[in-house]
Formats: sequence, C-alpha cells, structure tokens
Amino acid sequence: MDRGRLEAFSDGVFAVAITLLALSLAVAGPGHGSLAHLLAHRWPAFVAYVISFFTVGIIWVNHHALLSNVVAVDRVLLFLNLVLLLFVVMIPFSTGTVADYLSPGGFDARVAVALYGAVLAGMSVGFASMFEWSLHGGHTKVQLPRDQWWAARRRFAAGGLVYLVIIGLAFASAPVAFALSGVVALYYVFERTPAIRAATDSDSDLSGY
Amino acid sequence: MDRGRLEAFSDGVFAVAITLLALSLAVAGPGHGSLAHLLAHRWPAFVAYVISFFTVGIIWVNHHALLSNVVAVDRVLLFLNLVLLLFVVMIPFSTGTVADYLSPGGFDARVAVALYGAVLAGMSVGFASMFEWSLHGGHTKVQLPRDQWWAARRRFAAGGLVYLVIIGLAFASAPVAFALSGVVALYYVFERTPAIRAATDSDSDLSGY
Amino acid sequence: MDRGRLEAFSDGVFAVAITLLALSLAVAGPGHGSLAHLLAHRWPAFVAYVISFFTVGIIWVNHHALLSNVVAVDRVLLFLNLVLLLFVVMIPFSTGTVADYLSPGGFDARVAVALYGAVLAGMSVGFASMFEWSLHGGHTKVQLPRDQWWAARRRFAAGGLVYLVIIGLAFASAPVAFALSGVVALYYVFERTPAIRAATDSDSDLSGY
Amino acid sequence: MDRGRLEAFSDGVFAVAITLLALSLAVAGPGHGSLAHLLAHRWPAFVAYVISFFTVGIIWVNHHALLSNVVAVDRVLLFLNLVLLLFVVMIPFSTGTVADYLSPGGFDARVAVALYGAVLAGMSVGFASMFEWSLHGGHTKVQLPRDQWWAARRRFAAGGLVYLVIIGLAFASAPVAFALSGVVALYYVFERTPAIRAATDSDSDLSGY
Repeated sequence: MDRGRLEAFSDGVFAVAITLLALSLAVAGPGHGSLAHLLAHRWPAFVAYVISFFTVGIIWVNHHALLSNVVAVDRVLLFLNLVLLLFVVMIPFSTGTVADYLSPGGFDARVAVALYGAVLAGMSVGFASMFEWSLHGGHTKVQLPRDQWWAARRRFAAGGLVYLVIIGLAFASAPVAFALSGVVALYYVFERTPAIRAATDSDSDLSGY
Repeated sequence: MDRGRLEAFSDGVFAVAITLLALSLAVAGPGHGSLAHLLAHRWPAFVAYVISFFTVGIIWVNHHALLSNVVAVDRVLLFLNLVLLLFVVMIPFSTGTVADYLSPGGFDARVAVALYGAVLAGMSVGFASMFEWSLHGGHTKVQLPRDQWWAARRRFAAGGLVYLVIIGLAFASAPVAFALSGVVALYYVFERTPAIRAATDSDSDLSGY
Repeated sequence: MDRGRLEAFSDGVFAVAITLLALSLAVAGPGHGSLAHLLAHRWPAFVAYVISFFTVGIIWVNHHALLSNVVAVDRVLLFLNLVLLLFVVMIPFSTGTVADYLSPGGFDARVAVALYGAVLAGMSVGFASMFEWSLHGGHTKVQLPRDQWWAARRRFAAGGLVYLVIIGLAFASAPVAFALSGVVALYYVFERTPAIRAATDSDSDLSGY
Repeated sequence: MDRGRLEAFSDGVFAVAITLLALSLAVAGPGHGSLAHLLAHRWPAFVAYVISFFTVGIIWVNHHALLSNVVAVDRVLLFLNLVLLLFVVMIPFSTGTVADYLSPGGFDARVAVALYGAVLAGMSVGFASMFEWSLHGGHTKVQLPRDQWWAARRRFAAGGLVYLVIIGLAFASAPVAFALSGVVALYYVFERTPAIRAATDSDSDLSGY
C-alpha cells in the first residue's frame, strides 16, 4: 500500500477536526443577553479553541514527519493510524465540553478538563505506538540508532505522563490543569523529540524534489 | 478518467464522514444535570462512535485496496462509487440515532439498530458491486483467477448477510444486534477477503516508488 | 497556476458539501414521538438526500472532466470556479430546507422547492460559464470543434432552463417540481453533453499513466 | 519537509471552512412563521455568506500563489501557516454571528461586525507574516527584488489597516462597516499585490508540467 493515500486520508481528518473546533465558539444568538456579554462570558471557549488548534496542528506536523520517513505501509500501521485518528476526531468534542463547563466551575469543570486530558492521553498513546512501529522491521528510510530508542521512548512516556497529570490535577483545580495543557502545546511548538527531528531532517534533504 | 481525483474525492468524503461521527458524542450542556452523569448516561454514544469509526476505517482501507488495482476508471465505476459513498455518508446519521435511542430501549432502540444495520447493508451492497465490476472487462492490473470468483462472491454475500441478520436480530434484542456489528468490525480489522488481499499485495510490490 | 491545487480544493469542497447533506436526515431525538414515526414522517428528507447526493456527484464528475482538459489555470477560471462552488456549498442548505418544509405543504413547501431550484440554476450558470471559458483562448488540450459550440451551448441553456421550470412549477405543485429535479439528476447520471464526453475521452487516453 | 502535504492540509482546512459558511443560512424550521418571511428576514445571512465566501476564496488563491513560490518548508512557516488558519477557521463563526446580529441592529450589531473585522485583521496579519518569511533566507524560487519589499509591505499594511478601520467604523455604523468588508473582497477579486503577481507569474511558467 502506498503512503500517499494514507496521508491524504489523514490530512483530511486532521483538516476537518481542526476546522470543527470553531463550532464551540458559537454564541446562543439574539435574545440571550448582549453579544458583548455572551462573548466575554465564553472566554474559556476561545482559550480552549486556541490550545486545541495548536495541539492538533502539532500532532499533524509530527504525523507528517513520522510518515515521511516510512518506506512501506502495512496493515498494522493502518490500524495504529486509525487509533490515533480516533482520538484526534474526539478533540472538537472534548474542547467543546471544556468550553461549556469550565466557566460554571465546580465538579463539572473538573470532569470536563479530565475528559480533555484523557482524549489527549489517548492520542499520545496512539502516536507513541506508531513511533514504536517505525523502529522495527526496516519500516523507515532513516533508522533511529538503537542506542537512542530508550531516550526517545522516555520522551514519549514523559509526554503521555503529562496528560495523566492533567487528568489528576483537574480534580484539584480545573483551570490550572487546563492551563497546563496550554503550556504543553506551547512547549511542543518550539521543541521536537530527537526521533521526529531526525525524520524531519532526513526529509528536508529531499525537499528539493 | 484518472484514478487520482476519484481517490481524492472519496478520501475527502471518508475523512469528513469519519470526523462527523464525533458530533454524536456532544452532551446537552450545563443545566441538564451533572456532566459525569451525562457522560455515563451516553455510554452507547461512545460505543457507537468506536464501532462506526473502525467500520468506516475498514471500508476506507478496502476501498483503497480495490481502487489501487484499477487500471481505468469508467462511468459505471463512478456511479457505483457514488452508491457506496451514499451509504458511507449516512453512517454518522445512523450512528447518532443509535447513540440517542439505544439507552432508552423499547421499540425505538430496535428501530435505531435496524436502521444502523440497514445503512451498513447498503454500504456492503455498494462495495460488492464495485468488486463485481473489478472482475470484468480487464479493469484491473492483477486479475483474480476465475476459479476464485465464486469464493470471493460468497464471502461478500456472507458479509452482507450478517448485516441483514443484524436488522432482524435488532427486533429481538437491540443491544445484542448492535454488539454483533461491533464483532463484525473487529473481525474485519484482522481479516481480509482473498480478493482484497491479492489487490493489496500486488500494490505493495509497487510500494517502493 | 497549476491545476492540481485547484482540483484538490474543489474536491475538498465537493466532498464536504456532499457529506453535510446527511445532516438533514437527523431526527428530533427521544421525547418527540416514536422513532419509526419520526423516520416515516421525514421521508422527504431521505428523497431530498438521494436527489441532492447524485446531483452533487454528477457536478463533481463533470467538473473533473472539464478541468482534466484544461491546460493553464488563470484568474478568470479561479473566479468562475468560486462562483460554481458558491452554489454547490448552498445545496446542503437548500436540501435541508426542502426536507423540513416539503411535508407540511402549503406555500412554504413551494418556496422551499423554488429555493432548491434557484440554487441548482445558479450552479448551472456557474458551470456553463466555466465551459464557455474553456472554449476560448487555447485554454484546453482538446478543442471542441467550432461548429459544435452552439449545440453545446444549447444543451447547457436547456439544462439551466429546466431549473427555471422547476422554480416556476414549484408554485403550482411543490412535489411535482421536486420530483422533476430527481428526474434531471437521473437523466444526467446516464447522459453527458458531447463537450464533456470529448473532454473525458481525451482524458481516458492518458489514464494509463 | 515537502510542500505537498502542507498544501493538502491547508486546502482541506480552506475547503471545510468555506463549506461551513453555509451553515449560517439555515432557517429556524416549520412553526417559526412563513418560510418566505424567514428567508427575507435573514438577508444579512446571505450577504454575509457571499462576502465571506469570496474572502476565503481570495485568501486561498493568494495562499496558493505564495506557497507555489516556496522552495523549502521549515518549522517557522508551519507555525505561521497555523496562525493564518487559526483565523480562517474562525470565519464561519464570525460570519454566523454577523448573520444573526446585523438585522436586530443596536450595539449587538456593532459588536458582531467589529468581531468580523477583527478575525479578518488577524488573518491578514497571519498572511503578511508568511509573506515576510518568504522574503528572507532564500526561501523562494523567485525572489522579490529588494527595492520592492517596502512597497509590498505598505500594501499589506494598507490591507490590515482597512480591517482595523472596519472594526472602528462598526461602532459608528454596523451596516456601513460590513459593506466595506464586501468592497474589500470585491477589490481583491480583481487586484493582486505585485509580490503575489510575481509569484503567480513565475508559477504559470511551470504550469505546463
């Protein structure tokens, strides 16, 4: 199976998911108080939108970097890719839930942020599985040297752990836990794992064609 | 007509349909009871989401395998492909209906699961028609040997029959019939028809370019 | 400007528009009467879905055939393509309006079907403009012979006229006018204009690469 | 990183965003007065739809022209592209808000149009940043001569300024400010910046392949 259509399908899913994020910005419409008040009251929706937008954007960039290094697509990768997308597609839902429930506060806000963290944790497991697959069986153009495997796995584990921390922290303070997911997104904008960097750099050598 | 744009359009439809599945996860919002309760109460929506997600994912994989073996696209294939997509696009609707009506139970739950099975049966007829088209007139790169045609048709018929069983079973027990559609999805994740396998394998020989 | 990205963008719009058609199938949910009754009552939504699905599918096929014959994309074609898509994107809206208002009948049903016809008439003008553009200035690989220009224009005018008839007829009988739009879709599934056929055939010569 | 997948993902986002614009056309459904009255009353939704459709269409054309001139995609461009898309994805939301609030008038209408202008101003900053990136470091196939840099920047600044004027003007007269955004869209349909023209022309030389 060729890589092209797997990328086209995944790009489509990422594109639709990132665009549906904005559905959670919609206000109730005339007859529900002043628009300025409605918009101000929905500030968590705007914050959630920006955090989720960059989170999905970063996964897309990393997904591209990983796939660009893949030689042959097999049934296992197709399945792992579906697992990743299963959680990506849930991000507009978890973002909308945070947008609706963060402001009222209380236990609902905590459940909403925990749900948000759980979806990102699932996504992180999906991506780590695809990365693990890429290490074995000559699946990639450029192999990550074997002595760097555990360092890379530790980084993926750390990333997944942060999302578990967000789930736990949500039950102490929903806003703090949610802010942490923003910090994670910001961190990943500027930082990549060495494995992803290796894949991207190997790819950039080919960028001239 | 070249295959590329048929694949691009179909990939787009599959990607949008699979992403819209998550719309049925949305909860009613603040003022309708505790979020934890709302989420727990909507467990059929989550089960339906996962089953439908992998069902659409598998159709996409098989659709790709079949098309990758096609030499020339004609008007008949375009029409059969539209028939397949007609049912694929209905899956978010039938999934949402099951998500809403399975939990209340009663006759409504049975109708919802029967509707779910009917959409999948329609999709299965659409795909079997595309497969039948691929057998004739030198439409494919790798021809399925003639002595395997009836074996392949029997497998497609069996697949379609399972969905008819789901429709009938729904009126005896909605949850059992719905669980069966999950078993079918799981089965297809691990198993492919020999015809699809042949197409995919012939394709994987070309995966190096 | 190269044709590839124009096709990719247009394919995306067609794919999203055709998938959003199914949104109009959604029923009101538990608490609004029996599901079987709700579904039966919404039969116009299912009829409208099928008619619009094949209508958009046919436009997509013809759009592909026309573009596959284009040598160079200019600013005028980009603009005409946007005009076509402006109406394609409105089809889920006009389909949803027919789905909601056909059954209650009365003047509302007539307005809904007239709106449905008006959107298709606009789309038909958009496509005829793209076709007219393709006749001039060496824009196409295979030129339609000059003596066939008026025959082709007459066919496009006839197509546009049918949609005007649907608008007018809607105010006499909404169901008859709507049924006529189904007949038109069915007609176009089996029949293409000679111009489109020429373009498709020239393209199929290249289908081997 | 290769340009192809960046374009495919961006095209997907543009295509979904432009198609979601039509969601704001939907009327309330039977039981909310006559359909003809509902449609007539929602004229701002139709005007907003057309203006936003061509605005997104033009950004897409310019985005394509700029990217077609890019040699190598780096992390900075990926990030700036995400910033641009962050605002593009908000356009269906701001369009829907104008569609709902322009007609009732008053302070809400002013806030809605100011919001509409603010989203377009953000989008304009995103695009200007991508253009600025393209000037430096040999990122492009055809370099804009250095003596034209400030002329191009002045044009981008003028474009951004118009959107700031729309925000300010909205608080004097919402309809006039909104009409101005229509004039801007119309202007850009017929006019391009020299930088974009250079990029497009260099590209059209390659359009034969």
